[in-house]
Amino acid sequence: MTDVTLAFDEQEYLPAVAQDADSGEVLMLAYVTEEALARTRETGYAHYYSRSRDELWKKGGTSGHTQEIEEVRVDCDGDALLYLVDQSGGACHTGYESCFYRTVDGEEVGEQVFDPDDVY
Amino acid sequence: MTDVTLAFDEQEYLPAVAQDADSGEVLMLAYVTEEALARTRETGYAHYYSRSRDELWKKGGTSGHTQEIEEVRVDCDGDALLYLVDQSGGACHTGYESCFYRTVDGEEVGEQVFDPDDVY
Repeated sequence: MTDVTLAFDEQEYLPAVAQDADSGEVLMLAYVTEEALARTRETGYAHYYSRSRDELWKKGGTSGHTQEIEEVRVDCDGDALLYLVDQSGGACHTGYESCFYRTVDGEEVGEQVFDPDDVY
Repeated sequence: MTDVTLAFDEQEYLPAVAQDADSGEVLMLAYVTEEALARTRETGYAHYYSRSRDELWKKGGTSGHTQEIEEVRVDCDGDALLYLVDQSGGACHTGYESCFYRTVDGEEVGEQVFDPDDVY
């Protein structure tokens, strides 16, 4: 399926970072199983695996805020992925474009692009 | 130490994504403990925790390819971090600017910026 060795033998879940392919903004970090990655590549839309709900999910399946895949990259160790995506709406369930909308000091630096009450 | 609740109570290690503050390039993903994050904030240079070597490390401690911190962001769930950095040299021990220098199909898309034989 891929010419690059991925670390799924050692780790059931690999972290996947989603980055907006146009703006370069880092949108979110979630986890994938081998199956979630396969689904992503087959469909061209970002899929992840929720460790808390124990299920594979399509990003935007509920909200419509899908992530169309432009490219999937893998890091040097094969244990982290980078999804370059075309993000519809906002990536964060809070309404922000990116889940990384706060500094660690709590200052809001991100942009809110939708009202979550209208979406969920 | 911070106004944002981080998930260190649930997870000993949180993933931290390093992004070049100027170019927007995603450079690497590594893990931090609460102590590694504290050291990062105190010193202004990126520190991580190696789960395989079981030790806190300063990025660039050996190679000189340090990451000066411009900002630390946290995601909506408090379980992932984003380091916005000024990267000296290249982030990847292979000599590439970013660890994400390959697509999942094995195509090289990144730029090699140093010869690892000269550095390590």
